[in-house]
Amino acid sequence: MLAPVLTPFDAKLEVDIPRFVAHCRWLLAEGCSALAPFGTTGEANSLSVEERERMLLALLEADIPAEKLMPGTGCCALPDTVRLTRAAARAGCAGVLMLPPFYYKNVSDDALFRSYAAVIDRVADPRLRVFLYHIPQVSQVGIPLQVIQRLREKYPQLVAGLKDSGRDFAHTKTILEHVPGFRVFSGNEKFLLANLRAGGAGTITATANVNARAIVRAFHERTEEAQAEIDRVRASFEQLPMIPALKAELARRNGDPAWRTVRPPLVEAPP
Amino acid sequence: MLAPVLTPFDAKLEVDIPRFVAHCRWLLAEGCSALAPFGTTGEANSLSVEERERMLLALLEADIPAEKLMPGTGCCALPDTVRLTRAAARAGCAGVLMLPPFYYKNVSDDALFRSYAAVIDRVADPRLRVFLYHIPQVSQVGIPLQVIQRLREKYPQLVAGLKDSGRDFAHTKTILEHVPGFRVFSGNEKFLLANLRAGGAGTITATANVNARAIVRAFHERTEEAQAEIDRVRASFEQLPMIPALKAELARRNGDPAWRTVRPPLVEAPP
Repeated sequence: MLAPVLTPFDAKLEVDIPRFVAHCRWLLAEGCSALAPFGTTGEANSLSVEERERMLLALLEADIPAEKLMPGTGCCALPDTVRLTRAAARAGCAGVLMLPPFYYKNVSDDALFRSYAAVIDRVADPRLRVFLYHIPQVSQVGIPLQVIQRLREKYPQLVAGLKDSGRDFAHTKTILEHVPGFRVFSGNEKFLLANLRAGGAGTITATANVNARAIVRAFHERTEEAQAEIDRVRASFEQLPMIPALKAELARRNGDPAWRTVRPPLVEAPP
Repeated sequence: MLAPVLTPFDAKLEVDIPRFVAHCRWLLAEGCSALAPFGTTGEANSLSVEERERMLLALLEADIPAEKLMPGTGCCALPDTVRLTRAAARAGCAGVLMLPPFYYKNVSDDALFRSYAAVIDRVADPRLRVFLYHIPQVSQVGIPLQVIQRLREKYPQLVAGLKDSGRDFAHTKTILEHVPGFRVFSGNEKFLLANLRAGGAGTITATANVNARAIVRAFHERTEEAQAEIDRVRASFEQLPMIPALKAELARRNGDPAWRTVRPPLVEAPP
């Protein structure tokens, strides 16, 4: 179970590195097997490339092992994605979570394949492990099965898995059935048990930021009871704008109102 | 009439600065009143922030006057948008064309207003002139009238106009009717005459890269005949993926196949 780490900001909307490192340490102490900083939950696309670089470096300097990290590196611009992906691979990160370029829409399967191949070929690092990031309701550019199969054929070691944040478990299951050996994480713990039973690898879920221990337990126990428990917490956040609500909950628990801050275009949760 | 300048790449997909500067000079010589580099047509979101900075600097060093430039500066990340916008304002650019942050979807009017205000307040330069960039079919984040009105109220000088690349002229007209003094450019020369007759400022259109002289003439003549002529050229490109097709046409005319190159996720036009 990986946590897509929330990004704390100070009152000037600058990244708050000490709070970020502390939160990462806490998530690992709660039992997360690894961390996925710079995802949708982490407001990664609201960060500059340099900010992501500094944050990754801060984690490594804080002795958080690179093999516990799967940073998000997919940007709209090829040079940005290459730069972040190369840095992650060189640092020995367990993998990277890679959005497709998401500005242009109605991208063909061939164009999507070429986009990923262009990054992988330029990074040219055998240590690289790419986890494709499918979140069509946000990126508006999904990753079809055909593209996954073509990438696996060309890069059987390097293209290692998928985070499926689409809301359709039937789609996740189709991928598990058609792509042998692919490590598929559900983007929502609601599908944790179903995903594990279908051969999936686990979950990378936003609510891990506030409910890691229970989700880790559900991952290990694999019981309907443990699943029902984490479903209840998930449901309480699904009514709300997820990222501001998770930050508000962290602020409340830690007695640390600074955690409430989000960058535009997100808006802080009401008090 | 402004040209949203195409961005040439070399065989390694690096920005080709000499070809870019030469194309900009040619577009001005063809009669474009100004240039809008770094828009959708210019594959701006496929460029890093540093690349856009280098390209803008190259234009200024080539003695292209800053008052002839309206660079695109709207990125997903606030610090990137602030950095590019500040540089453009300091250089004395006529304006900037600013996309809203476009990763998160279903952004409220209030969130969109705050996103723009955060940039304007941070740049804090009285020379800044912001032209909002409405292209909902690509960005998936449009700019509603209510947001424009609120921005005009708070920044009557700085928020100067709009590029409306939505495909609905009724929407353009509504904005012209409700926002006095606003400089509204159509993103498609198909609406040039209609826009001018309704009090609009002109057009910023992709096909200017290959048909500038005729569009400039239509702008000045304001006749049905001149409009019909540019409509014919537009129609011939509308069947095709616009950006690769325009690049292929420039390559053909200039006898310069390098112009065909696009960055992923776009795909070159077939020969």
